[in-house]
Amino acid sequence: MPDVLIDDVDPDDYDLLVIPGGFPDGAPATVRGIGHAQEVARSFFAASKPVASICHGPWLLVSADLVRGRTLTSYWHDGVPEEIVGAGGNWVDEPVVVDGDLVTSRWPADIPAFTDAMMRMIRSR
Amino acid sequence: MPDVLIDDVDPDDYDLLVIPGGFPDGAPATVRGIGHAQEVARSFFAASKPVASICHGPWLLVSADLVRGRTLTSYWHDGVPEEIVGAGGNWVDEPVVVDGDLVTSRWPADIPAFTDAMMRMIRSR
Repeated sequence: MPDVLIDDVDPDDYDLLVIPGGFPDGAPATVRGIGHAQEVARSFFAASKPVASICHGPWLLVSADLVRGRTLTSYWHDGVPEEIVGAGGNWVDEPVVVDGDLVTSRWPADIPAFTDAMMRMIRSR
Repeated sequence: MPDVLIDDVDPDDYDLLVIPGGFPDGAPATVRGIGHAQEVARSFFAASKPVASICHGPWLLVSADLVRGRTLTSYWHDGVPEEIVGAGGNWVDEPVVVDGDLVTSRWPADIPAFTDAMMRMIRSR
């Protein structure tokens, strides 16, 4: 159950943005089209605060035009890598990719490496 | 590290066959082409002993001609569902599918349901 609506989120109240995956016709496809979700992601990037995303989650970063010039990974299928490249990102096939304040992974089997990289980023601040 | 070579496996020594997944150009693609791996799977089916498989693992069952008339699931991509249907199987999109002595799941996020169904099958014997 969510404890806050996306439209009510003030990004200044948070230190970490995690954009999870989900099924391609579900949450990731919905959230990428929500203007305030894009604004929250842009605010984190502008403030150089950590952002972590896995599976189809980077779709939000594509829609918010935040992957240009960044190196990241994502789920292999459903056109996610192609969209990232089309939006100017450098897509790589690794269990976890750290590019500045951005941590990305591909699928559930990468979660241990994803969580470890995310925690190290938070603790280094 | 493996503790036995596939060619040295006597299926009569085992009570459960787990056929894991892996990357499509790795283990699942290799194992499906090993004759004795197919024989081990056929032996389990013939003896009505439990078989569990996830992700790309059912490729071995396709190569061993063991999916005909069975209901099962697998990873969605890389042509796995299409191969199962082509070999006479009934492919369904569920986190875990139990058909007689066969338990199948789709991907790492299904592992809790996969493990639970596999353990219940073993304990019911």
